[in-house]
Amino acid sequence: MDPEEATHHPSAGFETRLKNLRDHVMEMGGLAEQHVELSVRAFLDGDLKVAEKISHADFKVNALEVQLDDECCEFLALRHPVAMDLRMVVAVIKTTTDLERVGDEAEKIARLALTMDHSRARKRHLRAIKHISAHVRKMLHDALDSYARLDIELALQVIKQDTEVDQEYEAGIRQMITFMMEDPRDIRLVLDAFWCAKALERIGDHAANICENVLYQVLGKDLRHISIEQVEKELEMAAPQAQSAP
Amino acid sequence: MDPEEATHHPSAGFETRLKNLRDHVMEMGGLAEQHVELSVRAFLDGDLKVAEKISHADFKVNALEVQLDDECCEFLALRHPVAMDLRMVVAVIKTTTDLERVGDEAEKIARLALTMDHSRARKRHLRAIKHISAHVRKMLHDALDSYARLDIELALQVIKQDTEVDQEYEAGIRQMITFMMEDPRDIRLVLDAFWCAKALERIGDHAANICENVLYQVLGKDLRHISIEQVEKELEMAAPQAQSAP
Repeated sequence: MDPEEATHHPSAGFETRLKNLRDHVMEMGGLAEQHVELSVRAFLDGDLKVAEKISHADFKVNALEVQLDDECCEFLALRHPVAMDLRMVVAVIKTTTDLERVGDEAEKIARLALTMDHSRARKRHLRAIKHISAHVRKMLHDALDSYARLDIELALQVIKQDTEVDQEYEAGIRQMITFMMEDPRDIRLVLDAFWCAKALERIGDHAANICENVLYQVLGKDLRHISIEQVEKELEMAAPQAQSAP
Repeated sequence: MDPEEATHHPSAGFETRLKNLRDHVMEMGGLAEQHVELSVRAFLDGDLKVAEKISHADFKVNALEVQLDDECCEFLALRHPVAMDLRMVVAVIKTTTDLERVGDEAEKIARLALTMDHSRARKRHLRAIKHISAHVRKMLHDALDSYARLDIELALQVIKQDTEVDQEYEAGIRQMITFMMEDPRDIRLVLDAFWCAKALERIGDHAANICENVLYQVLGKDLRHISIEQVEKELEMAAPQAQSAP
């Protein structure tokens, strides 16, 4: 792919508008990231004030999704992007869907924080959540970074981490089942930790989806639904183009 | 909106290609629907053969998503759709994402069917799953029907049903917690039912998303993230256009 193909457009302002679209995705991503951070903190620390705030703040992320979809439609209808520009717009549509669902999961965690019995929670109950949440937040941060810089190396790292998070999640769930069996009075509490872990694992999935969209934008190939090994092979083959990507 | 605006295009074959796109979404939807049906049956009846088959069949749904995204990009780049046609293409991109995730959830249910201890399962453990799965399968079927016929009345019904399914899900979870507390030896079994219920609840969410895309296509308004009452008000106001939609 010609790395300069994205810049050859007769209409003035094309690049600016495309940049605006991508900036708005970053804005939405920053907000979703913040909601995840705050909801996890509320869950771990039992901070009901923060939990209450985040459980009602999801409309902001949702509004950005609606706005971005409108902007994409306007851009497609008036500017007729092709090649990498077109893939960028399609990637915006896909990425906003993922970010909106990240916001949904943060809201779920905040609601769990509101209803869980913090007085029964012990360190051991929350250890897995602490571990998974640190990992997932790093993934989401890196996913947005790779989106901003169209960094395919970083995107690939995030996709790899998704498998690690899945394994941590499975291990966490196994551990929590043991806690339930040891003391059935903890069942409700442990279930709240379950749902929180599940929401975090989903956020990891969405971060990986965002990175797949980055690969698709830059390489022009759909790398979803194939193994990491295949992705790496594709990347090796496409190395010259990838290095010259913006 | 002029109901005929979609048919006024200079390029021959425009309508045929747009119809093909929508037909392929229906094909993908039919496959996802079939996977849900079979995975639920495998879970409820302990049919390991069917479970094994569906746990490895998701690549077909995934392949259709990749193919459809490619077709959308080609259509956007070469045909420059506007107005309702453009919204239809954006709706295809969004809808395939939802259908792909319906396929993912069916795969999860099939995997649960493979590992759960069917010998411990009693009727009471599976009652909620039976109930929710019947409801969710109806929702998915109606969602695809409303997509095929651009039937906004039906789309609205499905969106309403999503709230009912959420309530059934919550009730099911509460009941299952009681089973766990009654006999902690059933914890693992009940957790499998939990994950299955969660997967079904998600399929309901995706069916509702598909219906929101239908409303967006026909009415040209983004009706996601607002209450049912607001949606109904919007529909009442848009009634004349809606009746003349294809």
